[in-house]
Amino acid sequence: MTAAAPENAASGGNEMTGAGGPELRELYDGFAAENLTPLWTQRDDLMPPSPAPRAAAHVWRWHRLYRLAQRAGDLVPVGRGGERRAIALANPGLGGAAYATPTLWAAIQYLGPKETAPEHRHAQNAFRFVVEGEGVWTVVNGDPVRMSRGDLLLTPGWHFHGHHNETDQPMAWLDGLDIPFSHYADTGFFEFGSDRVTDYATPNFSRSERLWGHPGLRPLSGLRDTVSSPIAAYRWEHTDRALTEQLLLEEEGQPATVEQGHAAVRYVNPTTGGDVMPTIRAEFHRLRPGAATATRREVGSSVFQVVDGEGHVTLGGKRHELRQGDLFTVPSWVPWSLSAEDGFDLFRFSDAPVMERLHVARTHLEGPEGPEGPEGDTR
Amino acid sequence: MTAAAPENAASGGNEMTGAGGPELRELYDGFAAENLTPLWTQRDDLMPPSPAPRAAAHVWRWHRLYRLAQRAGDLVPVGRGGERRAIALANPGLGGAAYATPTLWAAIQYLGPKETAPEHRHAQNAFRFVVEGEGVWTVVNGDPVRMSRGDLLLTPGWHFHGHHNETDQPMAWLDGLDIPFSHYADTGFFEFGSDRVTDYATPNFSRSERLWGHPGLRPLSGLRDTVSSPIAAYRWEHTDRALTEQLLLEEEGQPATVEQGHAAVRYVNPTTGGDVMPTIRAEFHRLRPGAATATRREVGSSVFQVVDGEGHVTLGGKRHELRQGDLFTVPSWVPWSLSAEDGFDLFRFSDAPVMERLHVARTHLEGPEGPEGPEGDTR
Amino acid sequence: MTAAAPENAASGGNEMTGAGGPELRELYDGFAAENLTPLWTQRDDLMPPSPAPRAAAHVWRWHRLYRLAQRAGDLVPVGRGGERRAIALANPGLGGAAYATPTLWAAIQYLGPKETAPEHRHAQNAFRFVVEGEGVWTVVNGDPVRMSRGDLLLTPGWHFHGHHNETDQPMAWLDGLDIPFSHYADTGFFEFGSDRVTDYATPNFSRSERLWGHPGLRPLSGLRDTVSSPIAAYRWEHTDRALTEQLLLEEEGQPATVEQGHAAVRYVNPTTGGDVMPTIRAEFHRLRPGAATATRREVGSSVFQVVDGEGHVTLGGKRHELRQGDLFTVPSWVPWSLSAEDGFDLFRFSDAPVMERLHVARTHLEGPEGPEGPEGDTR
Amino acid sequence: MTAAAPENAASGGNEMTGAGGPELRELYDGFAAENLTPLWTQRDDLMPPSPAPRAAAHVWRWHRLYRLAQRAGDLVPVGRGGERRAIALANPGLGGAAYATPTLWAAIQYLGPKETAPEHRHAQNAFRFVVEGEGVWTVVNGDPVRMSRGDLLLTPGWHFHGHHNETDQPMAWLDGLDIPFSHYADTGFFEFGSDRVTDYATPNFSRSERLWGHPGLRPLSGLRDTVSSPIAAYRWEHTDRALTEQLLLEEEGQPATVEQGHAAVRYVNPTTGGDVMPTIRAEFHRLRPGAATATRREVGSSVFQVVDGEGHVTLGGKRHELRQGDLFTVPSWVPWSLSAEDGFDLFRFSDAPVMERLHVARTHLEGPEGPEGPEGDTR
Repeated sequence: MTAAAPENAASGGNEMTGAGGPELRELYDGFAAENLTPLWTQRDDLMPPSPAPRAAAHVWRWHRLYRLAQRAGDLVPVGRGGERRAIALANPGLGGAAYATPTLWAAIQYLGPKETAPEHRHAQNAFRFVVEGEGVWTVVNGDPVRMSRGDLLLTPGWHFHGHHNETDQPMAWLDGLDIPFSHYADTGFFEFGSDRVTDYATPNFSRSERLWGHPGLRPLSGLRDTVSSPIAAYRWEHTDRALTEQLLLEEEGQPATVEQGHAAVRYVNPTTGGDVMPTIRAEFHRLRPGAATATRREVGSSVFQVVDGEGHVTLGGKRHELRQGDLFTVPSWVPWSLSAEDGFDLFRFSDAPVMERLHVARTHLEGPEGPEGPEGDTR
Repeated sequence: MTAAAPENAASGGNEMTGAGGPELRELYDGFAAENLTPLWTQRDDLMPPSPAPRAAAHVWRWHRLYRLAQRAGDLVPVGRGGERRAIALANPGLGGAAYATPTLWAAIQYLGPKETAPEHRHAQNAFRFVVEGEGVWTVVNGDPVRMSRGDLLLTPGWHFHGHHNETDQPMAWLDGLDIPFSHYADTGFFEFGSDRVTDYATPNFSRSERLWGHPGLRPLSGLRDTVSSPIAAYRWEHTDRALTEQLLLEEEGQPATVEQGHAAVRYVNPTTGGDVMPTIRAEFHRLRPGAATATRREVGSSVFQVVDGEGHVTLGGKRHELRQGDLFTVPSWVPWSLSAEDGFDLFRFSDAPVMERLHVARTHLEGPEGPEGPEGDTR
Repeated sequence: MTAAAPENAASGGNEMTGAGGPELRELYDGFAAENLTPLWTQRDDLMPPSPAPRAAAHVWRWHRLYRLAQRAGDLVPVGRGGERRAIALANPGLGGAAYATPTLWAAIQYLGPKETAPEHRHAQNAFRFVVEGEGVWTVVNGDPVRMSRGDLLLTPGWHFHGHHNETDQPMAWLDGLDIPFSHYADTGFFEFGSDRVTDYATPNFSRSERLWGHPGLRPLSGLRDTVSSPIAAYRWEHTDRALTEQLLLEEEGQPATVEQGHAAVRYVNPTTGGDVMPTIRAEFHRLRPGAATATRREVGSSVFQVVDGEGHVTLGGKRHELRQGDLFTVPSWVPWSLSAEDGFDLFRFSDAPVMERLHVARTHLEGPEGPEGPEGDTR
Repeated sequence: MTAAAPENAASGGNEMTGAGGPELRELYDGFAAENLTPLWTQRDDLMPPSPAPRAAAHVWRWHRLYRLAQRAGDLVPVGRGGERRAIALANPGLGGAAYATPTLWAAIQYLGPKETAPEHRHAQNAFRFVVEGEGVWTVVNGDPVRMSRGDLLLTPGWHFHGHHNETDQPMAWLDGLDIPFSHYADTGFFEFGSDRVTDYATPNFSRSERLWGHPGLRPLSGLRDTVSSPIAAYRWEHTDRALTEQLLLEEEGQPATVEQGHAAVRYVNPTTGGDVMPTIRAEFHRLRPGAATATRREVGSSVFQVVDGEGHVTLGGKRHELRQGDLFTVPSWVPWSLSAEDGFDLFRFSDAPVMERLHVARTHLEGPEGPEGPEGDTR
């Protein structure tokens, strides 16, 4: 037998399945009976020239999410079993699964006045980001952590955690987890904890911050590196100041920003300088009024939330207006860029640590004005 | 509102969906309209107490695979487009997808006399393991690599490769790849190369072996660590000798084996001592006649192939007889153990590097006689 | 020939040299003529049972150092060639070399009113610690860095740096470098820079602090790890607060201190979580009034400076009273412990990163009350 | 006071010491009384523009060493206390210390017929290299290791070891250790062991080789990385074959050698791919007849031994003829190059791991014809 002509092999296989006569049909039936599948009929789909994600680039509007979350607050109790009043972004390309992207979970969680979400722990890594509101404490392995606007709060895998609302007002925030990856790869463990949180104290600063929240300093009682960051709360005050300084340094002609008018920080584990958790990267981006980013493609997926200001995102060539609280997903290899009306603040989380640790990360950079701009392909 | 009773929250949510009256129905319709999904109705499924894989522990019989592969050799050409005459294990729990496990691809590839499989490259990591036969050379980035019984041959991501059969006999072997992970996480790139292989030479040893195949020695021209192993071929001669020595050392009372009567080696990247490729671990296990392993549960999934001898595997409590060439899958957290009739040789590959790099690996060890034996839970 | 009796071989060798008759004398003369030396006559000295440092545990009094530095300020100009008005601790055990320990340099540097110390750079790693005073800026690779009481200022290898005093008062501080190691191992490079500092601005915060001094945050413009810390100034405000919080947490019953009443931080490189420079570790220790540390022996050497309070150090069994500014050295494997009269603050630097990177670090812990206390030997 | 003129500061300081009048003399006396030393009088020596080693580039002739070693065999017993009949290269620049370079010890060790060198262990890392002879076994942590021509044998820190000669012929070999570094940095520990070796068996292969000496394979019983290589013996057979293959590959037009006609391997720890021990690098170099290397300068020091063939080394511009067994030292930053008469085989060891781990390594490459050739400066 000689090698088939290029075009024939794949489609030929497909054709044969249908039209290929009784012998081929018998072969394919044999495959099916033995739990086998040929490569040649599906190679194209399984191994595309570049990532062809099923997940969609999609925008969710915060005011609609919030309204539905409020309604859920009226109708659905929070408690043991369901555990959380969290409403997840279900990517329209992923067939109804409660997944923002193949690897990432993003949800709005809503806690009514005086409510408690009971304690549990799971192997899945989790964080909360607070786009508005205050008055809730999350208790992580017994350490009460205040949740306020602009804060990033971590609940790394296998840490017990519950939440309680001290106030007469409801509060809602963004939950991010690696539930989809964990479900896909069968890595999850889950345990119930206390029905109430173990400590109802409401300190301004968690013990983790008091021990770890000093720049460039490490307690001698904490010399063993930890898989995830030991800092439970990354406060808005620090994030805001870091971004402000980057833009001021840029004005002074110093290298400080990612690109003109675009300041950004990554939240890191102070014991390693690396990502806060092994499967999730968290960053904060700020654009000056009128600034625009280059267009990037990256292997791996992200979720962004607008924290302040107004602007646009261009996702796969389509432009979307964005306001405070709005969320959007960027699937693998979909080109994206941001532009700011006035000052524009965005929180971002992604599965980049997965891609980097498995050495499949790639980034492609186009210029801010499209393919004419400076380009680069890093692998 | 107070916290719901433990049982009510989750099931209650479900109930409410159906029976919850018009208000709840309206809420859930609102979720659907906005591409949202509540956590509380599916928390149990998404976050089980321990991994609850959909993938099945399943055994495929080599003689049946081989017969179907032969038949495909008669009926289906190999060539550009379909690229390879490879027939993949389709795990019965994974809905017909050509996946041995959620992360791993395993296929029998069949190349007829004098055939050539054209060159291509892809971001996906690949290897071949030869359970029987000889006469094919795989050409990896221009380096011709002989394929013979017992050899492990690597084709790390983005290396061009094609195969050609020099003989008048067909040859079949096991292909292993991370296609399922790559497809899931949208990390794949693919490029066609030469329609013929770039070098039809048939040396006994590849250039990579001549440069890198000397124990404990590293060429000064190769001081930069590589993501994947630079060794293209791991020869049976070395594997067999390493296992033989372990069993002899055990007889001499020296620590050498994994457990009594169980020798094993891991194939490694000599530049790091770590796994041969960032997403795939490869090992070879040998049991003495009559020996049995402890029962293990591990996070992550594996595929085994019997290379020689006869024995049994107990998978999730069910015992299967095994002969040369037979393949079986071990999904995440399914207990497994092996026992040997006579000498029993098995090749294994797994996604363990993914689990370890993302810090979700766990192993649970039961004794060879079940839960009464020594136990351990490592995390 | 049979093996010699234990005692005879070494000393016997020595004896033979002198009294051993003409044949042996001829042999030893032959060695000398060929630039050879026998091991057996000096094995004991070269390879002692445990480290037998020539360097002494010694205390230097700040008020005496300061008075001599003042006098040098009157008599010795600062400028190109000599470069710095720095007066080094010369360990009495090291034969007059300007070395505090075999690996570490410690000096008091004195800069008169309006003086400038010209710019240069060297492969040697350097830092300054300010025990008192203010008004000097050090300019590191063009970035002006304020020097104030309690601050640690870094000048990692091959960074240009100069200092200038803006005030009408002199200022003195502690310089720490790895000059002895560099001189010993022949690793040093040196280059002159500008005769004046390149930037006479006097900002409160260096650009490095504005970019890097935010806890748990890393600029996206600084994702490449650096060998030494990118933070030029570790401010007293942060160090003091970190130590205060550790003692408060201890009072609340939380794990935070090294041992009862003993708070401590390590200064770290935020890109890695490791030491600030590859050859020098820097730490700050605070003891509550009345507290005492355990007695430790460590491989490697340290220099301490008292920053505040009064107390004692016990060095190799000998007790020394300490006041603000006093310095002392701890050679390898010499047992040391601290006790506080009132609150007791000490800055410490050491060659511990060298010991750890070369895998020769060992620590032995005795109890605070001597050998009856809890012990440990870590290797 | 204003800054001094460049030339005046340093020399001025010196001058002042002598001629500077009573005030300065009093100041310097004050320094001396307080164990202090000024920087400005010695900055030039302590911090030269580039490394200015005291150690000399020097050649020792094997036949002279061997003759003296034989004579020592007649006159000096081997046994407890002196421990070894080892005669060390004493670098003529290092004031008579038994140091080949500031960091490295190199000695010829001589063991007479049927002699035993008793067991001991020390924190110092050690190896033996055999330039000629056979018949001795070294017993490392109880594992008997045959010593034969061309073999490298390891005794990493804190491994018990002794040697015994099974034959009626004496045997001599090269010992390499980090004694000078250990003595300098006060890191050494030493313990006596058994007066006789613990196992007088004479197997062809050590247990360590049987477990670890298989290319690209790692025993599952040895998954924990080790600080030093677990391979006790690197056999000539493998080294020779690796070098032969590199030269053959070069002839085939493949990249394999360091530079034209210059093959080289590094001995590595298979658990990491890095150096065999944390303080010592070991390599083997082979030049084709007539080949010459580029001229290199490197931070750190080396010792070479000619294992076979004849050629020359040019050290700091001076050419030396070399024959089998000859040894020479290359101090830090001294330019060196090799040229071969006929085939030329050299063993090399160095302190390069120290330099790299402490980030002070630099290499400067000149062309083989001097400064006109291609250059490079890597830092």
